[in-house]
Amino acid sequence: MKRRIKITLAYDGTGYSGWQVQSNHPHISTIQGVVEQKISLLTKESIKVVASGRTDAGVHALGQVIHFDTFSSIPVEKFPAALLSVFPQDIVPLAAEEVNQYFHARYSVKEKTYRYSMDLGTMPHVFWRRFAYHYPYPLNIVAMQEAAKLLIGQHDFKSFCASGSSVQNYVRRIKSCRIRQDGTQLHLEITGDGFLYNMVRIIMGTLLEVGRGKLGIDDLTEIIAAQDRTKAGPTAPAHGLCLLHVQY
Amino acid sequence: MKRRIKITLAYDGTGYSGWQVQSNHPHISTIQGVVEQKISLLTKESIKVVASGRTDAGVHALGQVIHFDTFSSIPVEKFPAALLSVFPQDIVPLAAEEVNQYFHARYSVKEKTYRYSMDLGTMPHVFWRRFAYHYPYPLNIVAMQEAAKLLIGQHDFKSFCASGSSVQNYVRRIKSCRIRQDGTQLHLEITGDGFLYNMVRIIMGTLLEVGRGKLGIDDLTEIIAAQDRTKAGPTAPAHGLCLLHVQY
Repeated sequence: MKRRIKITLAYDGTGYSGWQVQSNHPHISTIQGVVEQKISLLTKESIKVVASGRTDAGVHALGQVIHFDTFSSIPVEKFPAALLSVFPQDIVPLAAEEVNQYFHARYSVKEKTYRYSMDLGTMPHVFWRRFAYHYPYPLNIVAMQEAAKLLIGQHDFKSFCASGSSVQNYVRRIKSCRIRQDGTQLHLEITGDGFLYNMVRIIMGTLLEVGRGKLGIDDLTEIIAAQDRTKAGPTAPAHGLCLLHVQY
Repeated sequence: MKRRIKITLAYDGTGYSGWQVQSNHPHISTIQGVVEQKISLLTKESIKVVASGRTDAGVHALGQVIHFDTFSSIPVEKFPAALLSVFPQDIVPLAAEEVNQYFHARYSVKEKTYRYSMDLGTMPHVFWRRFAYHYPYPLNIVAMQEAAKLLIGQHDFKSFCASGSSVQNYVRRIKSCRIRQDGTQLHLEITGDGFLYNMVRIIMGTLLEVGRGKLGIDDLTEIIAAQDRTKAGPTAPAHGLCLLHVQY
């Protein structure tokens, strides 16, 4: 009998060219490629998986969600341990459950939460170097926190979308957006009903301009209104970004 | 003029065969080898460094201390940034200072502090996998904390020294030894005037036996008294260990 399985995954994206299988990269250089290969090995089928969304090269996940269909009779509760034993160390299965055929990892998404992490230490912390963007310069964190609040709500986020994107509708609803300091680490945590291409990294890059004093807090409102990518700040590096949670 | 420079280093030991240059490994497969090569590049001399002590393959440091002598006129305050630019990403210079000729990174050590980290999550946390030993089984942490206290003080630690060690004197003074829980992580933090070969890893392996109920708290006293390596627990894996601080 065909079953649909939902798997929650964590991965260190450092060693991969991103989530999605691409024609110009070897299959196993992508996280999707490795995951499909290893699940196929387990179920003895040719498995294709669907993720909540792709993540770029170098981006991490602590709560990516995928689904796939299988005729295998492996009990669903056996999947996490079985996958842990065949996945490479930088991809970890966190949970598995059987879902009905109407569940779709991408189309059923209600909300996603991303975290962007920065290392503010004078020297990079050697344990965090893959997971946090090292930024050893002064920042006005209170100004960044105030600016972050202006992004909450429903807005046209075209100014925060990488140019070249082919989407028609740039309106997204941001439910929460906050900057949190934890010792020498700074985290942007943002939850919304959807994110445009590079949106979190451009928001982080723009909030950094606020922290540096290059932009004022109120400039955020003008940047949103402009619907123009060139008005926002630069795209922060991929390795600070992590997909934390997907809500269905 | 010859100057002696003291450098504090952090490193991720995952990719190396340990601190010390060994005749049977390529020079650059050791942290010492890379550090000597890069400092030599900077000062245009053939630099030999002395560390507070070696660390084994896979062991990390957040506060290793080394010294070297140089005729270079590079101002000491320039060393951290200059070394950061030439070191690989997994070795980070934290501080540099000029010291007098009587300072010796190894012989002047007063105390060292090590941390052994465990990941108690059901599945390994993908960000910690290089820095914490994954142990997803039940542990009696209170018993481990009580047993850890019995190691404090001056004792003959022969039972906690890897066999084959050539030292004559197994007496060491442990100033503090505690088990601290931080969410799903468990840390052993131990400070002493000196540590025998594999001593912290054997202490961790023995405290794990207490946590599992294989040993009682009071067995620690008997194990110390036995002066016999076979009485203590197994050697915990290298990658959970980190040299935190060296006190002079």
